[in-house]
Amino acid sequence: MVYLKEWLNQNLAKLNNVDKIEDPHAFSRLGFTVEEAASQEQFLSIARELNLTTYRDKGGNYWATWEVNQQSPTIAMGSHLDTVYEGGGYDGVAGVLCALACVKMLKEKRFQPSKNIAIICFIAEESARFGVSSIGSKAISGELDYNELVNVKDKNDITVRQAVEKMGISWDSLGQAMLPHDHLEQFVEVHIEQGSLLQENNSHIGIVSKIARPTRLVVTACGESNHTGTTPMQKRNDALVAISPLVSYIRDKTVQINNRDDPSLVATVSTVELKPNSMTTIPGEVQLGIDIRSVEDSSKKQLVKGIRQFCRNIEEEQSINIQLHTLVDNKPVALDAEVQEKLLHTSRSLSFQTEKMTSGAGHDAMNMARRWPTGMVFIPCRDGVSHHPKEYTETQNLINATELLMEYIESEATT
Amino acid sequence: MVYLKEWLNQNLAKLNNVDKIEDPHAFSRLGFTVEEAASQEQFLSIARELNLTTYRDKGGNYWATWEVNQQSPTIAMGSHLDTVYEGGGYDGVAGVLCALACVKMLKEKRFQPSKNIAIICFIAEESARFGVSSIGSKAISGELDYNELVNVKDKNDITVRQAVEKMGISWDSLGQAMLPHDHLEQFVEVHIEQGSLLQENNSHIGIVSKIARPTRLVVTACGESNHTGTTPMQKRNDALVAISPLVSYIRDKTVQINNRDDPSLVATVSTVELKPNSMTTIPGEVQLGIDIRSVEDSSKKQLVKGIRQFCRNIEEEQSINIQLHTLVDNKPVALDAEVQEKLLHTSRSLSFQTEKMTSGAGHDAMNMARRWPTGMVFIPCRDGVSHHPKEYTETQNLINATELLMEYIESEATT
Repeated sequence: MVYLKEWLNQNLAKLNNVDKIEDPHAFSRLGFTVEEAASQEQFLSIARELNLTTYRDKGGNYWATWEVNQQSPTIAMGSHLDTVYEGGGYDGVAGVLCALACVKMLKEKRFQPSKNIAIICFIAEESARFGVSSIGSKAISGELDYNELVNVKDKNDITVRQAVEKMGISWDSLGQAMLPHDHLEQFVEVHIEQGSLLQENNSHIGIVSKIARPTRLVVTACGESNHTGTTPMQKRNDALVAISPLVSYIRDKTVQINNRDDPSLVATVSTVELKPNSMTTIPGEVQLGIDIRSVEDSSKKQLVKGIRQFCRNIEEEQSINIQLHTLVDNKPVALDAEVQEKLLHTSRSLSFQTEKMTSGAGHDAMNMARRWPTGMVFIPCRDGVSHHPKEYTETQNLINATELLMEYIESEATT
Repeated sequence: MVYLKEWLNQNLAKLNNVDKIEDPHAFSRLGFTVEEAASQEQFLSIARELNLTTYRDKGGNYWATWEVNQQSPTIAMGSHLDTVYEGGGYDGVAGVLCALACVKMLKEKRFQPSKNIAIICFIAEESARFGVSSIGSKAISGELDYNELVNVKDKNDITVRQAVEKMGISWDSLGQAMLPHDHLEQFVEVHIEQGSLLQENNSHIGIVSKIARPTRLVVTACGESNHTGTTPMQKRNDALVAISPLVSYIRDKTVQINNRDDPSLVATVSTVELKPNSMTTIPGEVQLGIDIRSVEDSSKKQLVKGIRQFCRNIEEEQSINIQLHTLVDNKPVALDAEVQEKLLHTSRSLSFQTEKMTSGAGHDAMNMARRWPTGMVFIPCRDGVSHHPKEYTETQNLINATELLMEYIESEATT
């Protein structure tokens, strides 16, 4: 496998558009940017080396197809190439790379598939730029809220529409990007775990059963701005003093639900905005952004109920007005039971230590699963670190995933 | 007094550069800006109407002098015209206005002063733009840290030096602006209280004994950024979860010291900055800005000691590193005892309900007091609201302060 290892390392660097991946290496390759487009070019270049047919769908996603017969069903694999701000070189890239490697190895083995094999390179999976995730896979699976998207802007006030059009995608086409049901037979995504369960259990492969999706709240506490030097302590309506205990409450309540019912529940106060955020003025308004995820919808609901009650108690005790706004409330997604079982069986048949597990992060697979039978394969990533320059997985894990995909495709595409 | 009332209202609007002050009215007249300069022009225009001699000192402050004899001592009054972002029309302006009104009324009474009477219009008193307060009064009283100031920038990355030079003040001159000791005999500043003690006690006038000055800390908590969806609760080093209880601690500890030793102590966590402050990332770093004030240095020290201990305890219990940086640690300033007594006596002789009190906010008077005998007079402001568009004081309070200044100047400048 020295040959495959070398190929994976070279093409990992190529897809990341660098000569060599050093560790740690930060990438800022946001959705609908020239940086993302440069990596997509590398994808197309590798696909052409493998004699695959490439095209771009109406959602802006690139496809590379090993076509045997237009009438045959198509099995797709893939992931995305965009990253968060200062992210790592594996989140997304690993899945695209292993799919390419699988096709390369099957071709070299002179495997004759009975079905078309496609690799999808999804556009703009991360929500880092626009706060909206997985735009490309949403577009083709019919999950995109096209009309709501038109007003969304990035921090430089560039709208999604402007960004999309700048990348040569027609805005009207994006709204018509949903693919017919018979376009695909099934979809499988390989991805780094972005957690440390596999590493801790010395497992090679995780087969995902459910994908958690976020509920996101914005809590706005309104008190009264005033001079920090002249306002006595007992005369203050300090919005930060009032709302700050919510941070500990959310942590404690989440740990409590973890221990009792649902270890998959996680919750984070991830953003804080103060007004006016000036050294000499008492905070008049505080806005907290809260990200809640679980594969069990009921756990998220239980936590949100607790947050509401906690805020009501603050309002009753203090002269503070608190508003809760639900930004996002997405139901968890279950992946296809049959694909799961087949992937589990295949992985174990290759003697990989294999876990059935859930995903805390969202992925393109969650959108694909709403329209087509979908499976998802996790490989370990060091210490669970992701969305960070220290993100890393050993090449052996990429080899393992490639072998699993090869074995799976061979059995699925053999009549 | 209908005539004085009308004059005060007209010139209050004029100094604020509007036709009419409505309530509430927001002003953003930051230091060293064209907005501040426009109000300074109005000051010069009023001074010329009163036949005063005007000039600008090397610190950029404007003076208007009723000169009787160059050899005679000079009594000065005054305050500033700049405001915070979206501040009110009285903080600073009231003091300049009452000083002008005092001179106007004394001239109309054909009072013949035995000393020169000066009105100073200080530049850039608020720290809102550069985080450095009372630059003009610091410059002339020898309190300016000129070398440190050169690197200070506003939020648009404009340095103090650039801002100063844009307003026609030579940077070198600013460093040589300290005035000789015999330039002034004494200084008196009228200012709105920016608190509600006078209003609550139905008092007309406050005579300030001490001015609290700030100690400012920046507390930086460093944990670890990670994915909000994939990092289990027990594996997090969330900097916000770790440091957020400090907000309640500071409030509680301050109230405790208030009740036991020192009602003048106030403390505020007034700024919060998260890194990366992104919905899908656990806060890796949190920076809190803390503003602490008291007229007793020992109370500030006691609170800072408590904060240090609280942070050490967090560090011991959690994998979080916490750094404390002291931005500013200014000692409280006592005003001149004799000037205080004379102002108290004068105010009571005019039958004003008069309080001796401390100031929680900093003022130009605190710098002037380091070099010249200095007094400070407070008038009530509605509900203690300041640094806010709702800032307001009745015209009757401006009349009262004008009368007090007149009576005081008459007795001080009569040989």
